[in-house]
Amino acid sequence: MPDSLSATPQEHPARPERPAHARGAGAAPKGQQTKAAVVDAALSLASQVGLEGLSIGAVAELTRMSKSGVFAHFGSREELQISVVREYHRRFELEVFRPTLAQPIGLPRLRAMFANWMKRTTTEIDAGCLFISGAAEFDGRPGPVRDALVESFSLWQAAVQYTIQQAKKAGHLRADANEPQIVFEMHGLILALHYEVRALRLHGSIERATTGFETILAHYANPNQASQPKDQDKR
Amino acid sequence: MPDSLSATPQEHPARPERPAHARGAGAAPKGQQTKAAVVDAALSLASQVGLEGLSIGAVAELTRMSKSGVFAHFGSREELQISVVREYHRRFELEVFRPTLAQPIGLPRLRAMFANWMKRTTTEIDAGCLFISGAAEFDGRPGPVRDALVESFSLWQAAVQYTIQQAKKAGHLRADANEPQIVFEMHGLILALHYEVRALRLHGSIERATTGFETILAHYANPNQASQPKDQDKR
Repeated sequence: MPDSLSATPQEHPARPERPAHARGAGAAPKGQQTKAAVVDAALSLASQVGLEGLSIGAVAELTRMSKSGVFAHFGSREELQISVVREYHRRFELEVFRPTLAQPIGLPRLRAMFANWMKRTTTEIDAGCLFISGAAEFDGRPGPVRDALVESFSLWQAAVQYTIQQAKKAGHLRADANEPQIVFEMHGLILALHYEVRALRLHGSIERATTGFETILAHYANPNQASQPKDQDKR
Repeated sequence: MPDSLSATPQEHPARPERPAHARGAGAAPKGQQTKAAVVDAALSLASQVGLEGLSIGAVAELTRMSKSGVFAHFGSREELQISVVREYHRRFELEVFRPTLAQPIGLPRLRAMFANWMKRTTTEIDAGCLFISGAAEFDGRPGPVRDALVESFSLWQAAVQYTIQQAKKAGHLRADANEPQIVFEMHGLILALHYEVRALRLHGSIERATTGFETILAHYANPNQASQPKDQDKR
């Protein structure tokens, strides 16, 4: 499995490869450092007010730059929004996907994916998940921002599907288990978790999501190796 | 079980009891008829642009009324938004909940609830589900609009929970089945369906939601009456 969800959702010559804070002084040209800092600020803002709430003016105010200074880096509000989606994608990959590669192939890795995905959804209570809020904002609006969101989330879906496929090959899940079906059900639990925690402010939602995930795994477990996955998980 | 999810999410003296088109001429005072027509138009608009996209001005334009005419009916943009949530609630109750009461108590009724809920989510592809889009818009914004949304959706959750409880009493589901857990998992399937159909435009999502629901029912089925629910469902 590749160690990134993809090179990038949509290639862009000026796309920052690492966030500003991860770079040593002089590791990137000043222009790129500034742009990365602006994207950082814009992502924070988008997490609060949504991608649609982003504007060149608001980002300029937040970064204490001139409007024309921000504009010079992006050229349009749409390009700013796309840069934010890419930065969100990069962080999601770094924090949710990448650490799972340290887990053994099969169910242990799939469990790690779900755990990190849940964590991402719940630690972002105050900030909001861009995949979820962005989908709600842009599902009726075709265009490059929606395309970037769809491509980014689809890459994550594909990575989860690939991990399920590996779990089947490893004999942890039934050979006839349908990958898109399992991803669909996992995604449902994440969305319900997000809804209950964020919109309804209910308690016990993490436990419900975890229980739901265990039900899915039990349903698709390979009956011939029923005890293996949990043992492996304890390694 | 009561035949409505509740009297109303938040009592309001001027709340329309029936939509304008369901009333005969002269069945309601003209002021109420006009208000109902404005709420109809506002709900259509909110389905396209979200509750946050609603404004007195836009609704006035849509209904060819003066701004002050619309304002006279609601007094504020917030009151207009709340009226739209109430109208959505009324229609959801009428189209999703009410028809299920014709089904036998237990699994047949629960299946009908899920089927109607799915239908509501998928037929609203072009319009958007206010419970979902509204949650995304208002989850970080406390206030009466968010309260109305939460109360409305919570009543629906409670109705589904009650139906699950009845299915347990009827012996269709295991006595130890946890109602909030099952509602959580059902809600997850609905949210994943909405996301896949509306944001990702994937095919096969209805089948995936249906399969997921059958997995839930199988998991919580009462082993002593395993064949009964499906037989009843065919009545």
